[in-house]
Amino acid sequence: MELKIGVIGTGAIGQDHIRRFTNKVKGAKVVAVTDIHVERAEQIAQEVGAKFVKTGEELISLPEVDAVVVTSWDPTHEQYVLEAINHNKYVFCEKPLSVETEGCKRIVDAEVKLGKRLVQVGFMRRYDRGYMELKEIIDSGKLGEVLMLHCAHRNVSSGENYDTLMAIVNSAVHEIDVLRWLLNEDYVAAQVIMPKKTSNTHEKLHDPQVLILETESGIHIDVEIFVNCKYGYDIKCEVVCEDGVVSLSNPSYSSIRTAGKDFTGIPIDWEQRFEAAYEQELQLWVDSVTADEMNGPTAWDGYVASVTTTAGTEARETGKRVEIKIDKCPDLYK
Amino acid sequence: MELKIGVIGTGAIGQDHIRRFTNKVKGAKVVAVTDIHVERAEQIAQEVGAKFVKTGEELISLPEVDAVVVTSWDPTHEQYVLEAINHNKYVFCEKPLSVETEGCKRIVDAEVKLGKRLVQVGFMRRYDRGYMELKEIIDSGKLGEVLMLHCAHRNVSSGENYDTLMAIVNSAVHEIDVLRWLLNEDYVAAQVIMPKKTSNTHEKLHDPQVLILETESGIHIDVEIFVNCKYGYDIKCEVVCEDGVVSLSNPSYSSIRTAGKDFTGIPIDWEQRFEAAYEQELQLWVDSVTADEMNGPTAWDGYVASVTTTAGTEARETGKRVEIKIDKCPDLYK
Amino acid sequence: MELKIGVIGTGAIGQDHIRRFTNKVKGAKVVAVTDIHVERAEQIAQEVGAKFVKTGEELISLPEVDAVVVTSWDPTHEQYVLEAINHNKYVFCEKPLSVETEGCKRIVDAEVKLGKRLVQVGFMRRYDRGYMELKEIIDSGKLGEVLMLHCAHRNVSSGENYDTLMAIVNSAVHEIDVLRWLLNEDYVAAQVIMPKKTSNTHEKLHDPQVLILETESGIHIDVEIFVNCKYGYDIKCEVVCEDGVVSLSNPSYSSIRTAGKDFTGIPIDWEQRFEAAYEQELQLWVDSVTADEMNGPTAWDGYVASVTTTAGTEARETGKRVEIKIDKCPDLYK
Amino acid sequence: MELKIGVIGTGAIGQDHIRRFTNKVKGAKVVAVTDIHVERAEQIAQEVGAKFVKTGEELISLPEVDAVVVTSWDPTHEQYVLEAINHNKYVFCEKPLSVETEGCKRIVDAEVKLGKRLVQVGFMRRYDRGYMELKEIIDSGKLGEVLMLHCAHRNVSSGENYDTLMAIVNSAVHEIDVLRWLLNEDYVAAQVIMPKKTSNTHEKLHDPQVLILETESGIHIDVEIFVNCKYGYDIKCEVVCEDGVVSLSNPSYSSIRTAGKDFTGIPIDWEQRFEAAYEQELQLWVDSVTADEMNGPTAWDGYVASVTTTAGTEARETGKRVEIKIDKCPDLYK
Repeated sequence: MELKIGVIGTGAIGQDHIRRFTNKVKGAKVVAVTDIHVERAEQIAQEVGAKFVKTGEELISLPEVDAVVVTSWDPTHEQYVLEAINHNKYVFCEKPLSVETEGCKRIVDAEVKLGKRLVQVGFMRRYDRGYMELKEIIDSGKLGEVLMLHCAHRNVSSGENYDTLMAIVNSAVHEIDVLRWLLNEDYVAAQVIMPKKTSNTHEKLHDPQVLILETESGIHIDVEIFVNCKYGYDIKCEVVCEDGVVSLSNPSYSSIRTAGKDFTGIPIDWEQRFEAAYEQELQLWVDSVTADEMNGPTAWDGYVASVTTTAGTEARETGKRVEIKIDKCPDLYK
Repeated sequence: MELKIGVIGTGAIGQDHIRRFTNKVKGAKVVAVTDIHVERAEQIAQEVGAKFVKTGEELISLPEVDAVVVTSWDPTHEQYVLEAINHNKYVFCEKPLSVETEGCKRIVDAEVKLGKRLVQVGFMRRYDRGYMELKEIIDSGKLGEVLMLHCAHRNVSSGENYDTLMAIVNSAVHEIDVLRWLLNEDYVAAQVIMPKKTSNTHEKLHDPQVLILETESGIHIDVEIFVNCKYGYDIKCEVVCEDGVVSLSNPSYSSIRTAGKDFTGIPIDWEQRFEAAYEQELQLWVDSVTADEMNGPTAWDGYVASVTTTAGTEARETGKRVEIKIDKCPDLYK
Repeated sequence: MELKIGVIGTGAIGQDHIRRFTNKVKGAKVVAVTDIHVERAEQIAQEVGAKFVKTGEELISLPEVDAVVVTSWDPTHEQYVLEAINHNKYVFCEKPLSVETEGCKRIVDAEVKLGKRLVQVGFMRRYDRGYMELKEIIDSGKLGEVLMLHCAHRNVSSGENYDTLMAIVNSAVHEIDVLRWLLNEDYVAAQVIMPKKTSNTHEKLHDPQVLILETESGIHIDVEIFVNCKYGYDIKCEVVCEDGVVSLSNPSYSSIRTAGKDFTGIPIDWEQRFEAAYEQELQLWVDSVTADEMNGPTAWDGYVASVTTTAGTEARETGKRVEIKIDKCPDLYK
Repeated sequence: MELKIGVIGTGAIGQDHIRRFTNKVKGAKVVAVTDIHVERAEQIAQEVGAKFVKTGEELISLPEVDAVVVTSWDPTHEQYVLEAINHNKYVFCEKPLSVETEGCKRIVDAEVKLGKRLVQVGFMRRYDRGYMELKEIIDSGKLGEVLMLHCAHRNVSSGENYDTLMAIVNSAVHEIDVLRWLLNEDYVAAQVIMPKKTSNTHEKLHDPQVLILETESGIHIDVEIFVNCKYGYDIKCEVVCEDGVVSLSNPSYSSIRTAGKDFTGIPIDWEQRFEAAYEQELQLWVDSVTADEMNGPTAWDGYVASVTTTAGTEARETGKRVEIKIDKCPDLYK
């Protein structure tokens, strides 16, 4: 008995997920797709033997759709998630859960009213083996209390539409989620430093940026966001504890010595770096839906990420330290 | 439409494969199992919703079994593989294909007579990302001709029944297969050196051993086999070419600095080290069976491995260089 | 013809330098020593065949003393350096040049008045092979403009007398000097963040601290100072440029695999880490004195370090960003 | 009081040593030089303020020469070493001690007759920090008994005159000395394997070669000698023990990430790799001569190296395992 999935949005990330459900994820198949780009969606539907439907709402209401995946344009996420909740269907939504904190809140409220968690947000770093090893060490207490985290989020290059705002809202949001998951605590303040700008990008983007976060217990976090670093896709996370340091590695499977250099390759993008995490994320989501018990990143996590990126944006605009105020967490998410 | 698999032999490796088919491999399910340990096999059958049958022959003949997996006691491999061929069913057989070179030959002959490849041998190293990267570099010619390979096969410890013979026949056989696949050429001679023996094992095992192989084009290979190295499961492969060196890495996902040491962990066994390769092996086998076109290690590869391990054994016993004579390869395998 | 050196102060660092001059530095010997701890100084004098004299002033005035090394109590540095300048003798002074910025200024003024550089300050990081490689890459322009530096200064543990003030004034001062030397530009602002405090130290020390510096061209620098990190002496410096990153390595000469770990050792203190840099520093100082032409860190560098640590201290006390105002650099130091 | 040194032979290595004695080695100076290339030697003499003399014999007999360094053409080593012994002067001789085993024996006999060790052979690997760390670990017994060593000796390229013979006699001789020093035991047999030949060299050289050695206690050693590896100067030594492995590192001081690669540089020659070892070797030699007590590699070590390289050569020529027979070691060298 395979889980029958409907996918709303067949852009790049939607296609990747469809490919994973079709070729890799055990116990699931895609049965319906939709997109405003009809032709592309119809073709994909045909390739994987799914039905094409005209709207997300229609897809959600199909009786043969057991669970929904939302990979549409960011501003439409909220409406589809709410609709899925209305139909009492599990829904996996790519980040952001909503482009507005209030939208995240509306989703949280809907789940709380229903009294059941149906939503998972696509924060896939939590499924990376490296981050999982970091969490295991931190939770073990072997290195004592965490004091500081030094992180970097580096992309080879960013597109034309990527602007100054997106460095925190679209890129650092991954660190914002995964670090509070690692630490089991929330942020209380944000600050943003704008270093000298690289000449390798356009006018509308100030790149790099440094986001500084402070947690409830006083842990200091700095996250460099540098989306035109040119040399590779490189994610760093160094956790400095009282009795030692644990750091994320860039996994390598072979190394080469030639022409005076001893080197390993660096991934060129997130798929190369995190493909296994994406597959694990979707496999475990399918398993948890099948078991009727959510265990991934929640709507609440989506809300907290939104509050934090909003504070980060204010901190960048004002150049000041901005306090982060998070509502009381409903029991549903504890 | 899932591929329906029957598994003969529910010992450790059989159980691992059943678990993989059940939880990880897309497009397959286990429908029948058998083992001479009836109780264990019955319990496993029940857990995964498969039928228990009394014999391998019965299992192979079941109409609902599309393809067969042989993970039984080594001396029984040949008979089940031949039986599967008789039933014109695809069969995945763990190494060794047969405990005798003549047995491997009989399987090859049966396939040749049938005119179709049905057999895949469980040489899973070919599916490891590290070895695949090595092969890509070698085949690209970027580093020139391969001249030498320095390899090591180290296990934490070996069991009571592991004896001097098995170092080559059961352990180095993995290198014997993967290295000729890497190099696209066969071996012409073997020599074995017996270094000082570790005190960390029993009487019946001389550990470590060094197997030296020479290929058709003159490439020199040394393989250290050390199955009681105590510190971890460690597989090394350094390929020395005319213009550079490419080496297998021990992938790590995090590193720790504490108590004066900067360290990464070492796997404790092959499952930790090669789990992704096992899953990939079985996934691609299922995909190729479904596509009705074998592309993994063949019965011929099983035969060549047997010829080579036999020569290695003679070399160890005589202390001499032993020539390796391989029959002409049938067209079916080219 | 060896350079005849007088050493003022025979505490730990003084003894280390005397040992280096005696056993390692070519072309120099220690001929006179002094210290307020008379007995210890007399014994050291005897061991190396030097004369013991009662005061620094007397030592400086000895005709047989060609050049002076000041390794006395920090608050006495200034007076001995000024006295050496009065006697027109070269003087190597351990950092700080003076405990007050005004004191550094007085030394600069004395040199400017004399019209000759006689003073070298003991900023030995500039002589470390790793930092020299970083400088070579930066200066080559191969990686484009420098945008950010992420640094850490970690000691195993600090003594009873090490307090909150010293993290910047005594520890980060090394980064303050070496980074502006690396970058060929000065700082314009400082900020200090106080993370969660480690439980592995005493009341009077807030450890760790994070010093954030901004340079003239807008380069962002963060320096973690953590003097009770417990695991080892660890100095990090990652230079993020437009087209790549260059990082300081912790040099290792061997690695070990045992008990499930693949590790290299971490130095326990600065002598283990920087011994070669200390020897190079003193050798080049002796060579430059012999050549009658200073080329190491100047009194001006000592002054700038003092201005910067003072701003860092104010930033820590106020929690605010503090501007760094440096006087116009005299021609003597350009 | 500096040790006054006479240098016989002002070719490349002679000049390097003169430079080290002049600029780096404490307590020594070069007072006399000679070479059959008179003009070059005269110029060097002038540069360092030494006397030029016409012959090695004359140099050795000069009353102002305290100790002799022999860096002349290999076939002349023996005569100068014997002459130095005749004059009861300490002599540092570059390897080989003599081009014939019998010549080494004559030197040993002369020392034994004199009853005093005057000779040190230039096996500088023993002074490399990496090898010293290996020895410390081995001697500590922490990893149990040594069972195997896997080594490689790789040069970027070899000159026109470097032929098949020299791979063992001139290159592997370094491993031959340093490994028996590491292990505290001698070799009993040698074998040589000739892998596929690189196309990056000339007719008279078969490159690479693999030298296999067996020690008294049964330790297996393989040494790859590859003097046209093109990519860098790379020395590997992996010591496999009962309870773990210790390996030589290629020390690096910085690393770079650019253009998809994470790399460290590889030295291009032995001076880059071993400069610190050369300096340490000469410093400790000067110290030991000054203390009138030799503690470096002896004439006996030079003799054993000669016996072993001779056996290696025979093994290469015959393709057979050749036993290594070493005379009884005189008490003088125990």
